[in-house]
Amino acid sequence: MTTILISSRQDPIDLWREALAVEMPELEVRAYPDIGDPAEVDYALVYWPPHGLIASLPNVKAVLSIAAGCDHILADPQLPPDLPIVRMVDDYLTAMMAEYAVYGVLHFHRDMHRYRHEQLAQRWSRGWPLYTPDTAVGILGLGAIGSDCARKLGALGFQVHGWSRGPKSIDGVLCHHGADGLLAMAARCRFLVCVLPLTGQTEGIIDAGLLSAMPTGGFIINIARGGHLVDDDLLAALDSGQLGGAFLDVYNEEPLPPGHPYWHHDKVWMTPHVAGELVPRSCAKSVVANIRRIEAGQPVPDRLDKVRGY
Amino acid sequence: MTTILISSRQDPIDLWREALAVEMPELEVRAYPDIGDPAEVDYALVYWPPHGLIASLPNVKAVLSIAAGCDHILADPQLPPDLPIVRMVDDYLTAMMAEYAVYGVLHFHRDMHRYRHEQLAQRWSRGWPLYTPDTAVGILGLGAIGSDCARKLGALGFQVHGWSRGPKSIDGVLCHHGADGLLAMAARCRFLVCVLPLTGQTEGIIDAGLLSAMPTGGFIINIARGGHLVDDDLLAALDSGQLGGAFLDVYNEEPLPPGHPYWHHDKVWMTPHVAGELVPRSCAKSVVANIRRIEAGQPVPDRLDKVRGY
Repeated sequence: MTTILISSRQDPIDLWREALAVEMPELEVRAYPDIGDPAEVDYALVYWPPHGLIASLPNVKAVLSIAAGCDHILADPQLPPDLPIVRMVDDYLTAMMAEYAVYGVLHFHRDMHRYRHEQLAQRWSRGWPLYTPDTAVGILGLGAIGSDCARKLGALGFQVHGWSRGPKSIDGVLCHHGADGLLAMAARCRFLVCVLPLTGQTEGIIDAGLLSAMPTGGFIINIARGGHLVDDDLLAALDSGQLGGAFLDVYNEEPLPPGHPYWHHDKVWMTPHVAGELVPRSCAKSVVANIRRIEAGQPVPDRLDKVRGY
Repeated sequence: MTTILISSRQDPIDLWREALAVEMPELEVRAYPDIGDPAEVDYALVYWPPHGLIASLPNVKAVLSIAAGCDHILADPQLPPDLPIVRMVDDYLTAMMAEYAVYGVLHFHRDMHRYRHEQLAQRWSRGWPLYTPDTAVGILGLGAIGSDCARKLGALGFQVHGWSRGPKSIDGVLCHHGADGLLAMAARCRFLVCVLPLTGQTEGIIDAGLLSAMPTGGFIINIARGGHLVDDDLLAALDSGQLGGAFLDVYNEEPLPPGHPYWHHDKVWMTPHVAGELVPRSCAKSVVANIRRIEAGQPVPDRLDKVRGY
């Protein structure tokens, strides 16, 4: 018998039970706080687990994240240091993030922000977008999500650039890397879309230096983590005219506090951290595939690399 | 010497001159009203030409439309009845229309209409979209534009249906046709996107009957012509809750008159007839290709069929 313990305050546990039963009927599913005998738990599937929970499971073989990022697991000071952690790499999460990226780019590219203002003012004021094949979008982060964003924006006719920590090569994407590559890419892109993992190296990466490297009137779409963005630098760039607008899904504090300047800034379009959802019937496939790999002693490509942080 | 006369009050004649010179340097380009000798004009490239202009050109071989539709040419009561008319089928126009269709569907699918209201009310209120692979979009019109919309929405993971007058078969699209097929398709689609040509048969096609066939809470995106939509029926369906929203680019009267209910309806998102633009550097390629076909006595696939109306 293989046993998994789910711990999350926001995920639909019943849907997880159903979806895991479809993919792996022989898996016993328990939900925190009904742990039963802690020694029987083989896997922990978690989002922001209580501190010490994982350390209380003597035979746990791996911690599986109910999120693309693993910051919510690493935040536990009692986390056993050598325990494998597995990231959530899910096709539907990836597709949702790419939907949002495509939407956010088209929103500004097709002047939809301006037309909404015109409608509310009852003004008929036509204008024409830049020619799409002349318009460059830069994707920050070229993992599964960034690659899918790049592919779908490329299929719409945009020039697509991408940036990653180390060198990569992706068909149809002008790839850049490293600190110099980041500024070189920004200088050519009307749009920057951030889908990076949040690590010590990427925190605050969207700052005054990056924003001022962009052509005047560009746009930011942040669907990664609020910590990637230096809020004061973004607001200054919007107010100076350096930036034409921002579409934001994530914030340094969530929910965004009342009175924060983003709420009523006329160049900011906001959503409440909804770019990607973990739908159990999709995610259960990769959870079970990873459990089967571990049980069979095979390598797990989605395992967190604690040194690089993703 | 081959000579073309351009007549349009809204298109950028200088850009057309440049673009045609690139594609066909030997073409002489004249711009209305500087016709020169009318007997020397071989082709007329027009948008809403003055009535009688085309009849005044004794040797004109074809009228080329600066628009996907040809209603602006057929409106001339003095138009010589047997003169070939050539529709504008342009890859970039097609791509722009598909950009808008993708944007409009994602706008409602991802609750962006609701999140904009929430932002303005400073409310953090998360919700989750329907699962994209369970969500059906129906495209009204399966010509070059409809097919491209279908392909790009399919690539995002939506179920794609399409409707045309006669039967068609397109890979990845559930194709319907005829009056019965239209209602059968509507019954299955959360979204309907209209890209039909406006003809006697398609005028008023989006009416109370079609809207009531849709599942409750669906959405309309109209980027074809205002005449496809019965405004009072749309407003009634929005107000009753039968429809969740509409994204409109075209209207029965343009510019939309001040005070029209669309301007301030909280379920209507509007743009001022900007879904597709005819960019000369792209369109000149098909204009010149069609001139070369006619000069060589070859068939012209983009020729208007006056009986079917497109």
